[in-house]
Amino acid sequence: MSHTQAAEGLIAAGRRFHTRGWVLGTSGNFSVVTSRDPLRLAITASSVDKGALEPSHILDIDETCAVHGGIGNPSAETLLHFEIVRRRGAGAVLHTHSVWGTVLSDSHGLDRGLAIEGYEMLKGLDGVRTHEHREWVPIVPNDQDMTRLASVVGRILDEHPGAHAILLQRHGIYTWGATLADAVRHIEILEFLLETIGRTRAYRLRGGHDGPAQGS
Amino acid sequence: MSHTQAAEGLIAAGRRFHTRGWVLGTSGNFSVVTSRDPLRLAITASSVDKGALEPSHILDIDETCAVHGGIGNPSAETLLHFEIVRRRGAGAVLHTHSVWGTVLSDSHGLDRGLAIEGYEMLKGLDGVRTHEHREWVPIVPNDQDMTRLASVVGRILDEHPGAHAILLQRHGIYTWGATLADAVRHIEILEFLLETIGRTRAYRLRGGHDGPAQGS
Amino acid sequence: MSHTQAAEGLIAAGRRFHTRGWVLGTSGNFSVVTSRDPLRLAITASSVDKGALEPSHILDIDETCAVHGGIGNPSAETLLHFEIVRRRGAGAVLHTHSVWGTVLSDSHGLDRGLAIEGYEMLKGLDGVRTHEHREWVPIVPNDQDMTRLASVVGRILDEHPGAHAILLQRHGIYTWGATLADAVRHIEILEFLLETIGRTRAYRLRGGHDGPAQGS
Amino acid sequence: MSHTQAAEGLIAAGRRFHTRGWVLGTSGNFSVVTSRDPLRLAITASSVDKGALEPSHILDIDETCAVHGGIGNPSAETLLHFEIVRRRGAGAVLHTHSVWGTVLSDSHGLDRGLAIEGYEMLKGLDGVRTHEHREWVPIVPNDQDMTRLASVVGRILDEHPGAHAILLQRHGIYTWGATLADAVRHIEILEFLLETIGRTRAYRLRGGHDGPAQGS
Repeated sequence: MSHTQAAEGLIAAGRRFHTRGWVLGTSGNFSVVTSRDPLRLAITASSVDKGALEPSHILDIDETCAVHGGIGNPSAETLLHFEIVRRRGAGAVLHTHSVWGTVLSDSHGLDRGLAIEGYEMLKGLDGVRTHEHREWVPIVPNDQDMTRLASVVGRILDEHPGAHAILLQRHGIYTWGATLADAVRHIEILEFLLETIGRTRAYRLRGGHDGPAQGS
Repeated sequence: MSHTQAAEGLIAAGRRFHTRGWVLGTSGNFSVVTSRDPLRLAITASSVDKGALEPSHILDIDETCAVHGGIGNPSAETLLHFEIVRRRGAGAVLHTHSVWGTVLSDSHGLDRGLAIEGYEMLKGLDGVRTHEHREWVPIVPNDQDMTRLASVVGRILDEHPGAHAILLQRHGIYTWGATLADAVRHIEILEFLLETIGRTRAYRLRGGHDGPAQGS
Repeated sequence: MSHTQAAEGLIAAGRRFHTRGWVLGTSGNFSVVTSRDPLRLAITASSVDKGALEPSHILDIDETCAVHGGIGNPSAETLLHFEIVRRRGAGAVLHTHSVWGTVLSDSHGLDRGLAIEGYEMLKGLDGVRTHEHREWVPIVPNDQDMTRLASVVGRILDEHPGAHAILLQRHGIYTWGATLADAVRHIEILEFLLETIGRTRAYRLRGGHDGPAQGS
Repeated sequence: MSHTQAAEGLIAAGRRFHTRGWVLGTSGNFSVVTSRDPLRLAITASSVDKGALEPSHILDIDETCAVHGGIGNPSAETLLHFEIVRRRGAGAVLHTHSVWGTVLSDSHGLDRGLAIEGYEMLKGLDGVRTHEHREWVPIVPNDQDMTRLASVVGRILDEHPGAHAILLQRHGIYTWGATLADAVRHIEILEFLLETIGRTRAYRLRGGHDGPAQGS
């Protein structure tokens, strides 16, 4: 995929996610692999409004983070994109920062992860064939030292080879896919599931049908 | 209705439902009967984004699931569309997959259904003349064996001849209508009622006005 | 205001409210007084989608409900519009049917009303000058006998001369204004306040800052 | 920034916030400093719909509140804008009036403020470099005497020199920035955080992972 095509796709994804409130402020960041060897990413510049991205906000960077096109600087979180691209062979990495992702990554942080099991929507994740799938979403403590955080994320990715996503505590979700369309689909599915788990617990506070709560 | 007209209507319905978050990922599927004898359906292809449907995503299929137009494959859930079309004489079948539909189909699954009673909004369902109507929405356990699931759905449709919809557990709602407009109206009404029941329970957790909760 | 101008305004209001989920299905109905003597209303036809109103869906009716323009029939609830127009001298009447309006009209139905007090947003209601205002929103039991319901609504309007709105139980809100813009503003304010009261109660279930809950 | 440019920015901000339900009715008000010495503000006129602002709704006022352009009157809350502009050197001041801002300003009013701590989203506030930041949002009792309220707000701004925002009880939030874009970003961040705190408490009502609730 050319950098220009990748940029168009990322701009559209930004509008879509901003409308839903998943990348408010200047939160979130997105990338697409435009070349594998040597590695090149189209990635959103730091501190830009993801709901109003322009082509110049999409940087063309190499694996040293040198900027070959676009205006601005790569986010410090670019290191996480590299970890995911390398360890998962991903073609696109998306990070959103929703209310429910923040609530659940916070409330389940001590468990180091959140189990999502038994939902039909899980079948939209790459390689999942049945709703009986159990997805473990690891939760990583937030850290401003991005080198250290990238190292932790790398280790977690290796420890959970089947995971489709990682939550950063009180920070939001990272997911990825072979293509940008796959990664966009994963975001929608995971945000849906996080909201569903969040509302299920509130619903079940009362009444007699309270099996074990999801996600705990 | 011609296949082309049916496709236009399904594309518009997909945009409408995606905006509300009722068909995230590639969830949901929709059909319109374009011929009754021999039976022909315009139906969404499997694994497409319902918020960005294009005419080629709407398949023209016959009752053997052979594809006569459009690109892609029919979803395995096509069997459920056939059951509903045949047993209810429906002209359109819509399946959405909302957060509240998932929460309630899960939390009330052991009851095998959910009662909705006393709401003015019920009068928007075909043939309902008073808010005093009691709608029983059967809940069917989810199943990846679509032949078996279609058989269960068929039996449930016969056992509940007055039902306007069926919930699949942790999967979402199916409803139908004589026309696509009727089915779209049913989706909006049922999604509204599921959300209303969900929020009513949370609201009533406290305070002195707690009659028996709806839906339990 | 001419019928054509009134119709344009009602079409825009319908789109606005449908987007927010306040008139799903074919719920809700809206009117504007186009002549006072003799009385003529521009009013939405029964059973139309308020999010996709066309000029022909806006009927031109007289005080006997005879239709002088537009296609379709007046809703049975037209009688409530007449009661409000006559007793309040309103220039526009709007009825929405939101989730929170349904939840609160249901949960507070036994109280026959809901108090809203102490909110700055109240100052947007006609004639209210301070947030210390106490608005009593009467709740009327729902009834399919519209002649009887109109009579009850008329009596309630007289008993509560300061009320800016009425809730029908499990059915939604009616409000009005001197102009359509005033009535649209009242809908937004009242829907906001109902949602705020609903969420306040859920929020206060825990913790030590629980003064008396609003609305009870 | 010219008055015309400021007006365009405020119109766009109004549409954005109205879509999210943060300035329903005629709530909210916005300003941009167009000249520092002598002080001139572009500010929304009182009692206009912030979702449908037109250039004439943006007043050009001086520090005596005299109107040099636009149609209508400055809101009584203009005094708060002046306090913030003078004490913080702000280039733009925005006031939204959301459901969650109202709920939390009400429920935490007795504490005179709300602590927000440990969220990555805090890093979007001017000058904040780590999620470990603790933001104290002062809550000021609402008051219809705007001279008195402006005086209290001025004192609170001085007592909390690091604060990025103030909540008026049951009334909504004021924030500001060096530029309009900064203030818009602050609104999105703060509204996100208020909603997150609100939903976290409801989520944590049940289950074993209940550390101390945020915001209390």
